[in-house]
Amino acid sequence: MVLSIEPVSALSTGPLLGLGLDRSGPLAAQVEEQVRALIRSRALEPGARLPSTRALASDLGVSRGVVVSAYAQLAAEGFIRLRPGAAPLVAVTGRAAEPVAYEPEFPLVRARYNLRPDLPDLGLFPRADWLRSCRRSLAGAANADLSYGDPFGAIRLRSQLASFLVRTRGVLADADRTGIFSGATHALLVLGAVLRAAGAVRMGVEDPCHRWRTRVLAASGIEVVGIPTDEHGLRVDALGDVDAVLVSPDHNFPTGVVLSPDRRSALVDWAAAGDRLVIEDDHDGHFRYGGIHAGALQALAPEHVAYVGSASALLAPAVRLGWAVLPARLVAPVADRLFSTALATSRLMQFALAEMIERGYLDRHLRRSHAAYKRRRAVLLRSLARHFPDAQVGGAPIGLFVPVRIAGEARLLQRARKRWIALDGLNEHGLTPQPSGLVLGFAAAPEAALRRAVGLLKILAAE
Amino acid sequence: MVLSIEPVSALSTGPLLGLGLDRSGPLAAQVEEQVRALIRSRALEPGARLPSTRALASDLGVSRGVVVSAYAQLAAEGFIRLRPGAAPLVAVTGRAAEPVAYEPEFPLVRARYNLRPDLPDLGLFPRADWLRSCRRSLAGAANADLSYGDPFGAIRLRSQLASFLVRTRGVLADADRTGIFSGATHALLVLGAVLRAAGAVRMGVEDPCHRWRTRVLAASGIEVVGIPTDEHGLRVDALGDVDAVLVSPDHNFPTGVVLSPDRRSALVDWAAAGDRLVIEDDHDGHFRYGGIHAGALQALAPEHVAYVGSASALLAPAVRLGWAVLPARLVAPVADRLFSTALATSRLMQFALAEMIERGYLDRHLRRSHAAYKRRRAVLLRSLARHFPDAQVGGAPIGLFVPVRIAGEARLLQRARKRWIALDGLNEHGLTPQPSGLVLGFAAAPEAALRRAVGLLKILAAE
Repeated sequence: MVLSIEPVSALSTGPLLGLGLDRSGPLAAQVEEQVRALIRSRALEPGARLPSTRALASDLGVSRGVVVSAYAQLAAEGFIRLRPGAAPLVAVTGRAAEPVAYEPEFPLVRARYNLRPDLPDLGLFPRADWLRSCRRSLAGAANADLSYGDPFGAIRLRSQLASFLVRTRGVLADADRTGIFSGATHALLVLGAVLRAAGAVRMGVEDPCHRWRTRVLAASGIEVVGIPTDEHGLRVDALGDVDAVLVSPDHNFPTGVVLSPDRRSALVDWAAAGDRLVIEDDHDGHFRYGGIHAGALQALAPEHVAYVGSASALLAPAVRLGWAVLPARLVAPVADRLFSTALATSRLMQFALAEMIERGYLDRHLRRSHAAYKRRRAVLLRSLARHFPDAQVGGAPIGLFVPVRIAGEARLLQRARKRWIALDGLNEHGLTPQPSGLVLGFAAAPEAALRRAVGLLKILAAE
Repeated sequence: MVLSIEPVSALSTGPLLGLGLDRSGPLAAQVEEQVRALIRSRALEPGARLPSTRALASDLGVSRGVVVSAYAQLAAEGFIRLRPGAAPLVAVTGRAAEPVAYEPEFPLVRARYNLRPDLPDLGLFPRADWLRSCRRSLAGAANADLSYGDPFGAIRLRSQLASFLVRTRGVLADADRTGIFSGATHALLVLGAVLRAAGAVRMGVEDPCHRWRTRVLAASGIEVVGIPTDEHGLRVDALGDVDAVLVSPDHNFPTGVVLSPDRRSALVDWAAAGDRLVIEDDHDGHFRYGGIHAGALQALAPEHVAYVGSASALLAPAVRLGWAVLPARLVAPVADRLFSTALATSRLMQFALAEMIERGYLDRHLRRSHAAYKRRRAVLLRSLARHFPDAQVGGAPIGLFVPVRIAGEARLLQRARKRWIALDGLNEHGLTPQPSGLVLGFAAAPEAALRRAVGLLKILAAE
């Protein structure tokens, strides 16, 4: 079946340009391996047409049997789809063996220094209070509470959360309009899908904006449009014709900028004038270390602003609970969508969180975390001033991170990650190029580790 | 502003046909209330055009001010959208105040007799073992385990589940291809979206099939096509040009039919021949009371069949955990989709379930439940034989329900629900009309309650 070919190396000039055969082994195996590599690397995308066996054989100067054999093996492995009388297609994927992980650079458990800008200190997670809340809430649950329940969330948690958000963030919330999700990103996914179904086409996001948020909105089917930001926050005048906008008015990620009062009014007016929706993403606004005490934007216009938050920064991402306080008109469509997609969040977790709030455990945890984070932020700022005296350190005294403008972002990130420092770059969250710099989290690392990490970054920057 | 009108009742002849005014109160309030009711009942659909104020006023023989005032109030409440120079539109929704609930007829907590065909006995939920598992698994978790983790699921649970499914259902599973979801319906949603993204257009489902599954697949964006079934299960010869099919080969819901061996082979051949996907929905196959011991269909062709199951029947829906054992080619796209939609399931719950399996608590719970359900099924069958001697009772001795053909389904359901009996009708799960009958769950009610409920149904049927 395998024929020898005259030239030592034959290059395909067809759609598989770059395929090269030599005498290193069976020709079919070589074709098979190289096509598999092209599919794995996504050089050949899922759904792409492959050349017919005849065309490729002719391109490569081999017998058709060589290509038939290679294609058959690739089809058996699921990399390609053979179609009678038509060109084969690259199958859905050939990447099954690759691990996929939330942690984009390396598993957090391997991090030597955890400077992730979007994580709280998981070591402070109140394990004993959480278990106590699990026990008490389960003891108080009726058997019927262990069924599916309201897809919009357990009323008990919705009531507790509504008053918690009124008290801690000035949100105009009540249980009726407060819904429960699997994290804030799930809330964004559902809101995106609901807006899309109602005819919305384009959603603005701040540029820059946390990449996971942009990603999840795109997955909801809505077109995501970057809106420029400046030192006053979102450029409301640049919103153009978007139908909705996602904004973090109290603390942009990753610039740390706070939306100015003028812009707040303008944004709310924009929404009200066109019956558009503002989604307020309050990712880390519960932690405030300075004089800035703006309340939630949502309170200015509760029928035009959906307030979204989650337990990820308050407790831990593993809790996987988020919430949204919605304009009244969105309650039914969001609940419907939750029902249709059957994505109610675990009620056992919801009951536990309700208990955490009701017993005051969450408040106690936030006081402790706040005290630790305030100290750590001061340590990080001092270390940066010492090791990077020329770097511009920005952002309001809020949340879990500070942005630092430093030249050579990409190189520095690469070096830092090789040394197992978990951290983000400003440009990793931009829809367009951003100033070179880092986004350094201070919440997740103890003070001594922060000092050492910044010292190490200094050495890496100078290398 | 409000003028009296000559005729006592004026009917609109325009697009709002049926609007009737009388002298019972302010005219604007009457217009407002009736339009609101039309929107709430969806007689006027979201996005529908309303007549202009001028046209409606003329139709109703009232001054334009009456309609302007009514429309203004409806707009303020979010029911309609006013547009300068154009006809108002019905807003996205006006149903905000209505509760939305999973329990389609009434909240389960109000059920006098719980004959729901898709629920286990929530009173048997092993609360103490569950709490023990929460405590032990949290004690064993590293701080980094409280972060987001792998969106495909915690490896610890995936390993435990894979061996559990091999052992209990003969699934060809390993941790690499076993993913974790928020229930089986979430797995269907993700699979639907992944297939859709890969170019699939139509997915077949058994007709009849549980209505929530049809609903969630439709929400994933794929076109759902009912495939006829008969006493041997899915009519494989009628699959037509669908790209994938959802089937419960061991126990169709709601007919209880088991897919015949011939059909199993034919189904697998169909999938393999066209690179199509079979999704095996194993909703209650762990409970088997008779001689039928077919293993999972997935074992016949693990690269063409995705096996889907959940904790809802095994433990309780409130756990909100499901799983899928996937063909290798689907692992990466499913994990990618989970990452993009940020819908990882709570890791705290995952750790707890892994502990439940590892310690043997889940097996113990299943043995106990199985024994109780076996007795209850016998009681239900005896009660049916006594009170409905002519009714045809079908289905294999498997799972949580039996289908019963009884005339007058709709009337009987209505009467039963008025008496707070929770149960389903055969036609509620058909894509096309089904034989008249009920789907009676026997797992969730104690033996005495089953006897009384069937006796009550007999009385209601005779009324």
